[in-house]
Amino acid sequence: MYAVILAGGTGERFWPLSRREKPKQFLSLLGSRTMLQLSMDRLSGLVNPADTYIVTEEKYRELVLQQLPEIPLENVICEYCGRDTAAAVGLAAAYIQRRDPEGLMVVLPADHFIADIDEFQRIIQAAVRSACYGEWVVTVGIRPSRPETGYGYIQQGEALDNMEDIPVYNTIAFHEKPDLKTALSYLNQDNYLWNSGMFVWRVDLLLRLIAQHLPELNRGLASIAENIGTEREEEVVREVYEDLPRVSVDYGIMEKCSQNQVLVIPASFGWDDVGSWTALGRYRESDQDSNVLEGQGVFIDTRECMVYAPHKVVATLGVEGLIIVDSQESLLVCSKERAQEIKKVVEALKEAGYQNII
Amino acid sequence: MYAVILAGGTGERFWPLSRREKPKQFLSLLGSRTMLQLSMDRLSGLVNPADTYIVTEEKYRELVLQQLPEIPLENVICEYCGRDTAAAVGLAAAYIQRRDPEGLMVVLPADHFIADIDEFQRIIQAAVRSACYGEWVVTVGIRPSRPETGYGYIQQGEALDNMEDIPVYNTIAFHEKPDLKTALSYLNQDNYLWNSGMFVWRVDLLLRLIAQHLPELNRGLASIAENIGTEREEEVVREVYEDLPRVSVDYGIMEKCSQNQVLVIPASFGWDDVGSWTALGRYRESDQDSNVLEGQGVFIDTRECMVYAPHKVVATLGVEGLIIVDSQESLLVCSKERAQEIKKVVEALKEAGYQNII
Repeated sequence: MYAVILAGGTGERFWPLSRREKPKQFLSLLGSRTMLQLSMDRLSGLVNPADTYIVTEEKYRELVLQQLPEIPLENVICEYCGRDTAAAVGLAAAYIQRRDPEGLMVVLPADHFIADIDEFQRIIQAAVRSACYGEWVVTVGIRPSRPETGYGYIQQGEALDNMEDIPVYNTIAFHEKPDLKTALSYLNQDNYLWNSGMFVWRVDLLLRLIAQHLPELNRGLASIAENIGTEREEEVVREVYEDLPRVSVDYGIMEKCSQNQVLVIPASFGWDDVGSWTALGRYRESDQDSNVLEGQGVFIDTRECMVYAPHKVVATLGVEGLIIVDSQESLLVCSKERAQEIKKVVEALKEAGYQNII
Repeated sequence: MYAVILAGGTGERFWPLSRREKPKQFLSLLGSRTMLQLSMDRLSGLVNPADTYIVTEEKYRELVLQQLPEIPLENVICEYCGRDTAAAVGLAAAYIQRRDPEGLMVVLPADHFIADIDEFQRIIQAAVRSACYGEWVVTVGIRPSRPETGYGYIQQGEALDNMEDIPVYNTIAFHEKPDLKTALSYLNQDNYLWNSGMFVWRVDLLLRLIAQHLPELNRGLASIAENIGTEREEEVVREVYEDLPRVSVDYGIMEKCSQNQVLVIPASFGWDDVGSWTALGRYRESDQDSNVLEGQGVFIDTRECMVYAPHKVVATLGVEGLIIVDSQESLLVCSKERAQEIKKVVEALKEAGYQNII
């Protein structure tokens, strides 16, 4: 049983705190441990550090090793450049396969939050029990608590006839991010779950699915696999990686699987993808006007503002629904409703020549 | 002819740029010269530096001398503490009277902006011609260009029968800051002028008016006057000052004068009291969405924002009508409509124990 933590994201929605040189997963957004460290902590007692792999970009290798000193050097798998999650899990599978051709892979994002770690471990163990036959991809679906339009959904089918205390279901379909009306209808039915991006599969099954649905990726991974452990390993990853298709596990693999290949376990363990500054506000104490302040300052006639300015004294007067983030070199002021679009800010800054602060 | 520049204000509406240790009049808000330096520049050729007095608080003496090296040391008149403008002009009068008992005093605020300096000098010269008889206080009234509720107004009476090219009028009354409806009615009549806070009078007339209308101030000034030039001078100012009445020239003197004691000269020389961050926006180039940026950055779906952050890269997304000011230690985000209330912010910060950043 191997854990693969995907730590290659850019975290642009957390600009200006998240920067290309140190994105969201390497930041301490919730408490003193970084998101990556929390992801590792969560596996304690479930998967050994020696069996845990971190997939990241080359430029983050040092950050990973600094933050997770317990991880063996060779377990940090470096992509030459970001090519979305299908390539990332495929690359990890290529490495794990050499060690254990029928190894079980638990794929976990490095930048999500989970409140109930015991329940998380119970769910993963149940997923492992179903995945270990090598017939099924097992996903973890989160019971929705709001009509979220920012997530993909998994439509849950019939329960499998088994005796476990944690029920496992067939899946009917994966659905992309819905509009609000659709999200509301999902919420009102009880068989739509948020796609958490956590997957459990045997490495041989994953590689078979890649061969079937993503032949280009399959060819690239094959060249890499041939050279793992040789002098040419790093060189081949670089040669191959740039041309790999940019596709997610969801689009590239899950949606193309037949219904009876994918199982889902509904979970309620206080999951949050901490997808934006707004999400972060959910984990901070707010004042009576629903303002959240990381730092010092005063709010006057201010409502529903989220201020992150640990090194400043901030004062607001007569404003509402703002995200205000101060970093050493940059300042963001954004409507809460637009929190998902902070990527546009990063893009605009790039175009305007501010590469040094993104 | 003596100029008295009142440079004792706290400039709280320009927090966080304006600080108690260096308020608005000592800042370069408009170009490279500070507001105080611009006030001095404006007198060039009209009043000699040797005849120009600066009234300020003790703690600003060094700032004044640094910024105006041409001013003789003894012309910086220091109040022990701020006691509003009646005390400030009275104190200046006490010093000038010793030198020239019938001297003409031109009183000017240190923190206003005037675009047309030639016209300003013509108006002051006309005021001096009327004031030199020692019978009249002459004020400068600004022709209003908007229904401003933040200024006092002067109701202009009949023109004096004289041959000057710049007409001089009797005044009917001084009016305090009006509500919007009243301000609109003032704007629609043609005999209401903004009170600019500029006054011209003979020192003997001013001291007579203080004796008549502000007996407490009169007594205090008399003790100070007795000790000017003696060893006890500074000590007496300190003893007396704290107990002086806190009252403005407008409330304490002008409103109590009889109509035929006060004249007004209507002026149009591009005057602005630069009373708030909003006012400052009028002097900066704006983008097509009426945003003003001092500093660097990008505006996305942003309208009518005024950003002052010379040391930051600022990005805004989906916001409107905000004042955003970044300083070394503080950050202000304020609705433009509330710009006049930034004093409340300073007060709240004081109460919350942030004395070091106000």
